[in-house]
Amino acid sequence: MKISENIDALINALKILPGVGPKTAKRMALNLLSTNKQGAELISNSINIALDTIRPCQCCGVINDLEICNICSSKTRDNDLLCIVESTSDLFSIEETREFSGKYFVLNGLLSPIENIGPDDLRISKLIEICEERNVKEVIIALNSTLEGEATSYYLLDKLEKTDIKISKLAQGVPAGGDLNYVDNNTLKQAFSWRRELEKNK
Amino acid sequence: MKISENIDALINALKILPGVGPKTAKRMALNLLSTNKQGAELISNSINIALDTIRPCQCCGVINDLEICNICSSKTRDNDLLCIVESTSDLFSIEETREFSGKYFVLNGLLSPIENIGPDDLRISKLIEICEERNVKEVIIALNSTLEGEATSYYLLDKLEKTDIKISKLAQGVPAGGDLNYVDNNTLKQAFSWRRELEKNK
Repeated sequence: MKISENIDALINALKILPGVGPKTAKRMALNLLSTNKQGAELISNSINIALDTIRPCQCCGVINDLEICNICSSKTRDNDLLCIVESTSDLFSIEETREFSGKYFVLNGLLSPIENIGPDDLRISKLIEICEERNVKEVIIALNSTLEGEATSYYLLDKLEKTDIKISKLAQGVPAGGDLNYVDNNTLKQAFSWRRELEKNK
Repeated sequence: MKISENIDALINALKILPGVGPKTAKRMALNLLSTNKQGAELISNSINIALDTIRPCQCCGVINDLEICNICSSKTRDNDLLCIVESTSDLFSIEETREFSGKYFVLNGLLSPIENIGPDDLRISKLIEICEERNVKEVIIALNSTLEGEATSYYLLDKLEKTDIKISKLAQGVPAGGDLNYVDNNTLKQAFSWRRELEKNK
């Protein structure tokens, strides 16, 4: 017997979230409505505020609150070091490491003939423009190590080949804390080919 | 470097959802804002509609759109059979089985001295009132098999002991598809004590 159209509608809406199936959506909806109405309001308000204010940075393409994002307009970050990422999410992950001091370019996708995503969809001309304007010295390609990621990397390499820009790619190898027994063959092969000579104490 | 206050606010808000940690919240927020704005709007609208319309049924306590819920006001469901559940969520789970044809009473909690939940918080007097009004013949206690669930079951048994109402409790035993090797000791013990004699073909 149907209990409530509106609860069912909320359960269906929550299934939109990545990784949320029917059971989890039900749990979330009933938790919000029975014990956490303030939380529900907060989520709804945060979504509305974000939807009203968020837009892509005109320069690097990251989604944020400003026309030109904090990183692109920063005076303290290296202007001649550019990291190319697939998505805002990847940019967030790299920022969390506090390891990278340059600027970013967000492709917002990867080349994929199946999904009909070509070079024009990735704003490659804007990327070339930024490289020339800022006199970029090094481009770090930080794309996922998937078929589409590799294809896009090679396309970018091809596009930038004639410039003086140094082009690098994230290292592939054994993850930190990884056990060799559980690392797949391809990763292990890559870890061999990317091995680095250790310095000896002479 | 902070990219966007509003994205951070949304990530923090999504962490309110049960089972959602910082990584998942980030993934959800960026997925909604970069590739699924319509979905984000739908979630926000569904939350607002549900918050505006949802209230507890005056009779059984289930959260729903009506003053008296569809089940309590149904003419087709057994009026003298009452299933006591902890939460709306448990009621949804039982309804999904389509096995139960009676009505419900939702305690919206379990007795818990630690969380300061006493009998008055569980509307026990309303439960007794319903039992008398409807001339209930059987009460099925369908509470979680936890310490609080058991304590609440015994309390309910004590309250209803002097009536003529038949009181039963959900069976405990091996779950459907369960492997005896992976069933814990307590469950196995319970399965022995709840065993049922099989009928012989004479």
